[in-house]
Amino acid sequence: MNDAAKLVELRRNGILESTHRGHVVVCDAGGVIAEWGNPAEVIFPRSSCKMLQALPLVESGAADAAGLGVNHLALSCASHQGAHIHTDLAREWLAGLGLGESDLRCGPQVPNDFEARALLKEKPESPCQFHNNCSGKHSGFLTLNMHLGGGADYIEIDHPVQLAVKEAFEDMTEAESLGWGIDGCSAPNFTCEVGHLARAMAKMAQPEKLGATRAAAAKRLVQAMMTHPLLVAGEGRACSALMAAANGRAAVKTGAEGVFVAILPERGIGVALKIEDGNSRASEAAMAALLVRLGVVDAADPRVARYLHRPDINRRGIKAAEFNVTEEVFAQGRPL
Amino acid sequence: MNDAAKLVELRRNGILESTHRGHVVVCDAGGVIAEWGNPAEVIFPRSSCKMLQALPLVESGAADAAGLGVNHLALSCASHQGAHIHTDLAREWLAGLGLGESDLRCGPQVPNDFEARALLKEKPESPCQFHNNCSGKHSGFLTLNMHLGGGADYIEIDHPVQLAVKEAFEDMTEAESLGWGIDGCSAPNFTCEVGHLARAMAKMAQPEKLGATRAAAAKRLVQAMMTHPLLVAGEGRACSALMAAANGRAAVKTGAEGVFVAILPERGIGVALKIEDGNSRASEAAMAALLVRLGVVDAADPRVARYLHRPDINRRGIKAAEFNVTEEVFAQGRPL
Repeated sequence: MNDAAKLVELRRNGILESTHRGHVVVCDAGGVIAEWGNPAEVIFPRSSCKMLQALPLVESGAADAAGLGVNHLALSCASHQGAHIHTDLAREWLAGLGLGESDLRCGPQVPNDFEARALLKEKPESPCQFHNNCSGKHSGFLTLNMHLGGGADYIEIDHPVQLAVKEAFEDMTEAESLGWGIDGCSAPNFTCEVGHLARAMAKMAQPEKLGATRAAAAKRLVQAMMTHPLLVAGEGRACSALMAAANGRAAVKTGAEGVFVAILPERGIGVALKIEDGNSRASEAAMAALLVRLGVVDAADPRVARYLHRPDINRRGIKAAEFNVTEEVFAQGRPL
Repeated sequence: MNDAAKLVELRRNGILESTHRGHVVVCDAGGVIAEWGNPAEVIFPRSSCKMLQALPLVESGAADAAGLGVNHLALSCASHQGAHIHTDLAREWLAGLGLGESDLRCGPQVPNDFEARALLKEKPESPCQFHNNCSGKHSGFLTLNMHLGGGADYIEIDHPVQLAVKEAFEDMTEAESLGWGIDGCSAPNFTCEVGHLARAMAKMAQPEKLGATRAAAAKRLVQAMMTHPLLVAGEGRACSALMAAANGRAAVKTGAEGVFVAILPERGIGVALKIEDGNSRASEAAMAALLVRLGVVDAADPRVARYLHRPDINRRGIKAAEFNVTEEVFAQGRPL
């Protein structure tokens, strides 16, 4: 079993100061194309697997029965920052189903969006469950639940909604999940090997070999993410910036504790990575570098470059350090 | 050469989610007592070495000539959060020397202190250089500079102030520094091996074998830190909480990018650690665990326990994960 590989580093005046290690797997339909670290490392995908968790919503017919649009599907895969574009859409979505904030089980969260936070302070008003970064996923769960007719607590591990999510997750990763934990939004999150998560993403990228219903659902969700990058995260966030830069050639999604996945429909490629120490500064840098090597974004694009080579500007405006993906692994690597 | 050791981990529902690796050395006057990882790892001590950087201020007689008290010496070793207790003291200190904010070269910084930040917003007023977490260290540099008669830019690598700082640093670590970088506050920061930093801290703990002037300076600085834990960092900060809990048995100091040192005068022990990935959640946990094993704080003390076993409470108040120092390395280890 390989140990975690050194992927990203911070250098001060050219001298190594900090290092991030992790596990990366790049797959296509034929199997693994490239890997660093240990592909069999068991990880919590956290929010990176939201598009897998949304499969039953579409496959069951619940999304169509509720008249969900491309924007709602994008939001169902989102870790958004509680801006008005996110909270308004979730609120309208649930209202259309005759549901409201109290039906959610994600808990309230102070929004990361600057304007939304300032407005709450000004009113003053407490953040609500619509501000929770997972309120789109939970609106999807509620929509699926109306269809399945389960109880109100749709986040319980043995609830029909979560059983459907688990089945889709295990089917796509082609492995039985041997563990689970409670996520930040109180929904269950199932473990898998990082390589199996990459395999699932490759199937999302090229779903033709899946059954027709699943294939259609996968295509719609990936297309929705790529169509609405801002709904999937928000202004200034890595997922939105990288998807905007990829311009329809990749859907990407971050997960807490240093997880990041990518789906490249044109190339039928899936990527999954986990930074061992859980730091998103490293997962974002590694994902940006992989997308460059995979040819779907340009390293010179400022939306990409800011993650690839992040200068550490000190309090007098001096560039004191620089944060980079390791040359051995990424920058000097051949195209993938 | 040993690789970095696994020191701290996050578990979700008992399953490993993230791991922090690093290097730890515990020394006394006789040498190394315990170590994990690579003691020869070259690191930037960053702010963890502020008490070494303050040695020339005291040894030169500059501190006494300026009439500095125990509180000023504590502030000279601080990475404070810009609360009024910090900024007022720094302002008064420089005013006493006929100097002011414009003489500082640390740059302005938005204070981490909640009240100070709210007040700036209310006025509204921009943060100034006194709010910089290093303004105490820089006030010390300015005081030393009056004594030495150097030029205004006391942060330049070849300025008499920095030459004196480098000499003290190399003398205490007993090694020539082979590199340096610019710190967040624009002052030079010299590299050293983590084991050499621990050795320097052991000498700070038991300075009797040093020359009389250095020994007296070391004692005064360590005593100042332990006398004024809040001046060294601030409310809710690890350095202040752990020093308050140690109640005169340890001076501790954090540094950016996952560095932490401790000085235990009663036992003549010095500690230095670096978390490889630079995360302070891990350096704080590891230092808290070491202080427990070294017998200077109580693991049940809430000021310590919050760093040792940090529960990850999710947005509905459920304990979803827990952050712990690894059992192998610390929790089940014998007392040191």
